[in-house]
Amino acid sequence: MDQSQLFKKIIAKHSFLCVGLDTELERIPSFLLKYKDPVYEFNKRIIDATQQYTVAYKPNIAFYECSGAKGWLSLESTLKYIRKKYPGIFVIADAKRGDIGNTSKMYARAFLENMPFDAVTVAPYMGEDSVIPFFSFKDKWVILLALTSNKGADDFQYHNEDGIKLFERVLAVSKKWGTTDNLMYVVGATRAEMLKDIRKIVPDHFLLIPGVGAQGGNLEEVARYGMNSKCGLLVNSSRGIIFADNSRKFDKVAGEKAREMQHEMEQYLAERNLI
Amino acid sequence: MDQSQLFKKIIAKHSFLCVGLDTELERIPSFLLKYKDPVYEFNKRIIDATQQYTVAYKPNIAFYECSGAKGWLSLESTLKYIRKKYPGIFVIADAKRGDIGNTSKMYARAFLENMPFDAVTVAPYMGEDSVIPFFSFKDKWVILLALTSNKGADDFQYHNEDGIKLFERVLAVSKKWGTTDNLMYVVGATRAEMLKDIRKIVPDHFLLIPGVGAQGGNLEEVARYGMNSKCGLLVNSSRGIIFADNSRKFDKVAGEKAREMQHEMEQYLAERNLI
Repeated sequence: MDQSQLFKKIIAKHSFLCVGLDTELERIPSFLLKYKDPVYEFNKRIIDATQQYTVAYKPNIAFYECSGAKGWLSLESTLKYIRKKYPGIFVIADAKRGDIGNTSKMYARAFLENMPFDAVTVAPYMGEDSVIPFFSFKDKWVILLALTSNKGADDFQYHNEDGIKLFERVLAVSKKWGTTDNLMYVVGATRAEMLKDIRKIVPDHFLLIPGVGAQGGNLEEVARYGMNSKCGLLVNSSRGIIFADNSRKFDKVAGEKAREMQHEMEQYLAERNLI
Repeated sequence: MDQSQLFKKIIAKHSFLCVGLDTELERIPSFLLKYKDPVYEFNKRIIDATQQYTVAYKPNIAFYECSGAKGWLSLESTLKYIRKKYPGIFVIADAKRGDIGNTSKMYARAFLENMPFDAVTVAPYMGEDSVIPFFSFKDKWVILLALTSNKGADDFQYHNEDGIKLFERVLAVSKKWGTTDNLMYVVGATRAEMLKDIRKIVPDHFLLIPGVGAQGGNLEEVARYGMNSKCGLLVNSSRGIIFADNSRKFDKVAGEKAREMQHEMEQYLAERNLI
């Protein structure tokens, strides 16, 4: 999927919502625990209930990995389910991997070849040769961490050399490694006002925005400062949607929460005359 | 295991060698492919042949993850084998994980609780709250990336604010998050001369040094610039040991390569009067 195909999906659904599948076994409704793979059963229902409002899903790999091989099977089943039932949806492995070249090549194969994700999140600390192997797969995307949504972002991401902060350097240097068709950036919504400056460095790239909802980010501000002529945004919400309710109708409530966000997004897309 | 226990093991074995289990299915001897789990069979033989010369093993998670759930089972079996047969050996999950707090907690559980690794490598980019959850486990270690051994280390790790390079800031800031009993640092051997400056910031911490061997690092220089009064070094070699030979006697050759490194290490330990 390239940038204009992704944009077309956003236009078709009037949504730039990504639903984060941070599926914590301890938090899923108890009636699902009788199933062989409760995590998969939970995801299936969440996906069915939210898919009409979302253009993307983002399984957070940590929540699968913490169950070892079993968790990995839940992840594989979930991806298979989306691919089969909703083939047009963009699926992101939120893995934040990154290592020396021959190791990154293995991580890239894990998520972009052996498992058919569309994109994988990658950490920038180790530089170009740790990121390049992820670009070897046609129609796949690297989503590089730039400015994250957590408090700890202050520790190093603002490290300032001659007026250039580290996250700005990450943007400026790394944009030469890929194109607007295979590279996007993670920019935390809790720093929405920073999007203005970030857009000066990467006006045309898609940005994946976590931190809306549970982490306190504001969708209206994200749209105001971050949207470009091809939307250029995927806004993720995880806990605010998937754990909005813990009863038998958790999926219905998740669908409602997703629809609320989609409705708001529709408005911002309309204001920009994109739909 | 705390710092003095790790030091005792180094003294007992006259070695600060860590063998990297970067077990690439395509590179293991073909006669092992008939087994149900060739990766595990390979690791078992490598471990048996090298364990007397090494104080640590470091499975590189990418090489398991690239085979999905199956790879995860190979990893779990390998760890179980080491724990059962050679219980005193320090085992590092080379995972380079790091995410917002509630996600890092899941990664920490994956490697330090659900799988009984002694240590996990962690990426610093997202700052304190992305690293802290890894410290929640008694007698377990965080090994934080500081200065890596790859070319791409130049892209961001030397980003310089008022004379302080990013990797120096990572060291100076993060050393407050843990202690010398639960925090060590990755410092690439291809930058051995940098160890002198690094020791000014973290004189007492253990350093995990990759990049000796296949990546060109020099053991003698690493020992000269990096060793402290409790040795303070774990030097990793992966490909140079495990893939030194591709025949039926690959394990014997791996053992010889490990012994060579151990012999050299013994000499440096003796020169410092540590043994």
